Amino acid sequence: MRPLLLRCPPGCLATVLGSFSASRNKLVPRAAAGPRLLHLTNTMHYQTEARGRPGSPDYRVYFKTPEGKYISPFHDISLIAENEQENDMPTKKAKKNESEVLFNMVVEVPRWSNAKMEIATKEPLNPIKQDVKKGKLRYVANIFPHKGYIWNYGALPQTWEDPNHTDKETKCCGDNDPIDVCEIGTQVCFPGQVIQVKVLGILAMIDEGEMDWKVIAINAEDPDAKSLNSIEDVRKSRPGHLEATVDWFRKYKVPDGKPENQFGFNGQFKDKDFAVEIIKSTHEHWRALVQKQTNSHGIECKNISCNESPFKCSAEEARDVVSSAPALCASTHPVSPAVDKWHFV
Amino acid sequence: MRPLLLRCPPGCLATVLGSFSASRNKLVPRAAAGPRLLHLTNTMHYQTEARGRPGSPDYRVYFKTPEGKYISPFHDISLIAENEQENDMPTKKAKKNESEVLFNMVVEVPRWSNAKMEIATKEPLNPIKQDVKKGKLRYVANIFPHKGYIWNYGALPQTWEDPNHTDKETKCCGDNDPIDVCEIGTQVCFPGQVIQVKVLGILAMIDEGEMDWKVIAINAEDPDAKSLNSIEDVRKSRPGHLEATVDWFRKYKVPDGKPENQFGFNGQFKDKDFAVEIIKSTHEHWRALVQKQTNSHGIECKNISCNESPFKCSAEEARDVVSSAPALCASTHPVSPAVDKWHFV
Repeated sequence: MRPLLLRCPPGCLATVLGSFSASRNKLVPRAAAGPRLLHLTNTMHYQTEARGRPGSPDYRVYFKTPEGKYISPFHDISLIAENEQENDMPTKKAKKNESEVLFNMVVEVPRWSNAKMEIATKEPLNPIKQDVKKGKLRYVANIFPHKGYIWNYGALPQTWEDPNHTDKETKCCGDNDPIDVCEIGTQVCFPGQVIQVKVLGILAMIDEGEMDWKVIAINAEDPDAKSLNSIEDVRKSRPGHLEATVDWFRKYKVPDGKPENQFGFNGQFKDKDFAVEIIKSTHEHWRALVQKQTNSHGIECKNISCNESPFKCSAEEARDVVSSAPALCASTHPVSPAVDKWHFV
Repeated sequence: MRPLLLRCPPGCLATVLGSFSASRNKLVPRAAAGPRLLHLTNTMHYQTEARGRPGSPDYRVYFKTPEGKYISPFHDISLIAENEQENDMPTKKAKKNESEVLFNMVVEVPRWSNAKMEIATKEPLNPIKQDVKKGKLRYVANIFPHKGYIWNYGALPQTWEDPNHTDKETKCCGDNDPIDVCEIGTQVCFPGQVIQVKVLGILAMIDEGEMDWKVIAINAEDPDAKSLNSIEDVRKSRPGHLEATVDWFRKYKVPDGKPENQFGFNGQFKDKDFAVEIIKSTHEHWRALVQKQTNSHGIECKNISCNESPFKCSAEEARDVVSSAPALCASTHPVSPAVDKWHFV
């Protein structure tokens, strides 16, 4: 684990959002921290532990800290990952970067794959599992010209699209999940990977009447991350990718007999600032959830680090959750060739 | 291995082409065969034997018959695979199918992958290996919106795009390889898989001045094979796939600093009959090659079944070729993440 040299100026988004973070990983406010440059270890190199049989309904990926403490990726990974600087002396370059807030993202589905892996929001410690529909493991349809998901797909921890909350613009309620992220970097990630992302914009998807925001972001470690600072930068440097993103989300459930998805704002991407406001709102809803101040809609809130949460448990209790899951099986369950079908919609 | 019930009416393409086939797998002409319905075992279930370290320059996939005799996939697999019937009694349905000639195809690159696996034309027994350029294993660029090859890609055995031959229409010489095939079926194949395909059309690609035909075909076992009988059927049932095919071939070398590829016939696909004529021509050129009647341009012609070939060798000699290759290594060579880059051309 590499300690990062971080600076958190007053008024930056990290400070604003930091106040909502779970206590264990919470930001050290600048005033309290003393020196301008701080060694924080907020960017954790999380580990994963697989259980059950890969490719089967009982397969799970649990999360733990570098020290081996089991955690919930939904509740115990900090939303804010901090802004990273290359030097410990403030330079012009560093100044430019200090307004960049990085968010942690939990990768669920690697780019170009189609097994619908997701944070199990209704299981203790919220491991990643493959979604099951009508008793069958779910694979999203490959819709020509696309193969699987066209980004690394995942969620921002400590966010919740609250079904009790109606969006002002779209008049739709949240879909009861953490907010989704499409990460457009070069690296193909793995399910359970925790990366730090720079938010670039957001798309207001409406899935069967539910609000289902899609944050557009890039891995902060991507070679292109420095040159991508807005949704317009994405449009210019990745011609076709944003259009493909709308097209992908519009059609991806059609081969399963579902209607096309709809979009708020006429399918236009909103900018980075708008995206951060939506993220802040979903973070507030998550905080109310984990503090048991709202109807939880079945969400499992067990965590080991949220001090104000009645769902906080001991490290031993968390360990017991994982050890009661089936042991990892060496053999992988065979996959039907049908998951490779290319649909022409 | 499942014996197929076959019928070979006089004048069918199988008969015409059959006369060019290597003797071991050659067609039994109807007149000589007596009964109208024959049990032939021309559709072989070939086996493969991997050698060397997967993902490294010394990795090889050799071919053998179900009886374990090593063969060259270039020279010893019959071009014609026969037309398959479902019943041994001629029915209307069977009648319809009897004009369909099936070709064997050797799969080199599975759909959606990008390691440039190919028949090693200049090595004894022509195993499949990964192409090496400037000392590095070659991966073709993923060009947005595509991921790897957009079909199962491979070659028709017993064909040769003869560098000594100038195409009438395009005035280009052959590229010194067996003729390439894009197989558009649903199944994702594996390198070394031998499938039976139905030819649907052809594209006249010109790669740096060399003729490099791309046959469009579908696996005869594909659920859609029966309903796809022409290039127009492909255009209607797979909207965008033919346009994507031209686009893919035009641009795929651009990220490697090469010019865009060009096309004969203004990039229009030619029909099935035209394709079969081209295939016949490349089969004739192959026959001259294997019979040492032409400049071989470095092609390795060792085979075990072509009776009129001076390059025919014994089963023992073929076995010695394979046993002198490095033994299969259990561990796979790590692949650079750079092969996953998505290029926006």
